Amino acid sequence: MERLSIVKIGGKIINDSELLDQFLNSFQKIEGAKVLVHGGGRAATELSKKMGIEVKMIEGRRITDAETLDIAVMTYAGLINKTIVASLQAKACQAIGLSGADGNLIQSHKREVGAVDYGFVGDIDKVNDGLLVSLLGAEVVPVLCPITHNAQGQLLNTNADTIAAAVTQAMSEHYRVTLKYCFEYNGVLERLDDPNSIIKLVTEDAAKNYISTGIFSDGMIPKVENVFHALRNGADQVSICGINYVHEKSPGTTFTL
Amino acid sequence: MERLSIVKIGGKIINDSELLDQFLNSFQKIEGAKVLVHGGGRAATELSKKMGIEVKMIEGRRITDAETLDIAVMTYAGLINKTIVASLQAKACQAIGLSGADGNLIQSHKREVGAVDYGFVGDIDKVNDGLLVSLLGAEVVPVLCPITHNAQGQLLNTNADTIAAAVTQAMSEHYRVTLKYCFEYNGVLERLDDPNSIIKLVTEDAAKNYISTGIFSDGMIPKVENVFHALRNGADQVSICGINYVHEKSPGTTFTL
Repeated sequence: MERLSIVKIGGKIINDSELLDQFLNSFQKIEGAKVLVHGGGRAATELSKKMGIEVKMIEGRRITDAETLDIAVMTYAGLINKTIVASLQAKACQAIGLSGADGNLIQSHKREVGAVDYGFVGDIDKVNDGLLVSLLGAEVVPVLCPITHNAQGQLLNTNADTIAAAVTQAMSEHYRVTLKYCFEYNGVLERLDDPNSIIKLVTEDAAKNYISTGIFSDGMIPKVENVFHALRNGADQVSICGINYVHEKSPGTTFTL
Repeated sequence: MERLSIVKIGGKIINDSELLDQFLNSFQKIEGAKVLVHGGGRAATELSKKMGIEVKMIEGRRITDAETLDIAVMTYAGLINKTIVASLQAKACQAIGLSGADGNLIQSHKREVGAVDYGFVGDIDKVNDGLLVSLLGAEVVPVLCPITHNAQGQLLNTNADTIAAAVTQAMSEHYRVTLKYCFEYNGVLERLDDPNSIIKLVTEDAAKNYISTGIFSDGMIPKVENVFHALRNGADQVSICGINYVHEKSPGTTFTL
């Protein structure tokens, strides 16, 4: 099977036009089939503030009411997605930006109301892998924003890490998929104060050890859970790497079961 | 050659969710290959107001400064485009929303500064007809928003009527193209106060006559100029019709050279 690189970037890179440009230079150098998944970034919060809309949080989680959804669609599917696509086109990369509604790419359902009503948040039901296969076959580079739809006309806000994982799983039937979470460090650091202490390879046993000794803590713990979930669900290789190295074969920290 | 229907809708339909839904019901009934081009609508102006950004006008023309461009990208390529795509998907129409940057679909250059500096407004250089041909061949329905790019990373605001005309011209090499301008009346009226006075067929000579006798006036004059420009540049048929009749063969007012 051919190799497919799925790369996810988050808010810190999107918020900084210089970091974003550095990342896109590295991304466009990736050989073969590739998909970019981007998160939200500060634009949504800034737009909410300018419009006098309060960001609603319950237990540290953002609630997507109707107004917040409109802002998410405007910034994620609009400004961020098209800015990235135009930049990639300027680098001679044949990018096409898509939401989950486009071509019924990612169908989801509104999260059921439990203890918390998250509002217009979508949990993924299925990925239209056929559409991605045909776009990749035409040497197009899909750029996915974190907006999905329920196939009944409702757009929904969906976590970008989850989209990257779901697309990885769906595409693993057609490609050997490498999933790369790209962030501001060049890999996972053994000592946060030492940028040279990148951990090259992490097995599942080693990960458990890093968590128990506190080397992996806070936000790193759900990220590692995502990584091993992806490896158990079709990913051939998963790594966490820096913005300048996504085009390398095994950049940053590579994970293995 | 196969037939292709290119339908353009403007702000008045986009602003009214009921009219939009009626239109989309008629649009999805169009048989064969079809493309939807949408304009801006009120969302951009409303967002500008909420953000405290003044709409800049010179000689009745809107000026697109950097802030206004961001708002145009957010509302046209984001909220409006994705709302339409999600609605079409709900009607089992395999729509994909695209800006001119996506797949390098519409390349433009920033309008030269003359007596007026229009700001980030793009005049079209070329349409990637190959991409549209391959999407239509895969039975996808492209939904185009009025944002283009200069292939150097700059997004640009571009008139939707002009996009519809440029796409018509480019696609006329591959299809017999019918261009339909869809609006709130069921056709061009001979007497504005009589909705039944629809003019069925207008030749170029008849149009000149209607203009000289004042039956075509104001906004109708540039529209008629667009229509005959399209007919001289590849369109097989051009009509102006109401929201409920776009799926009919010769709806509303049909123009011929």
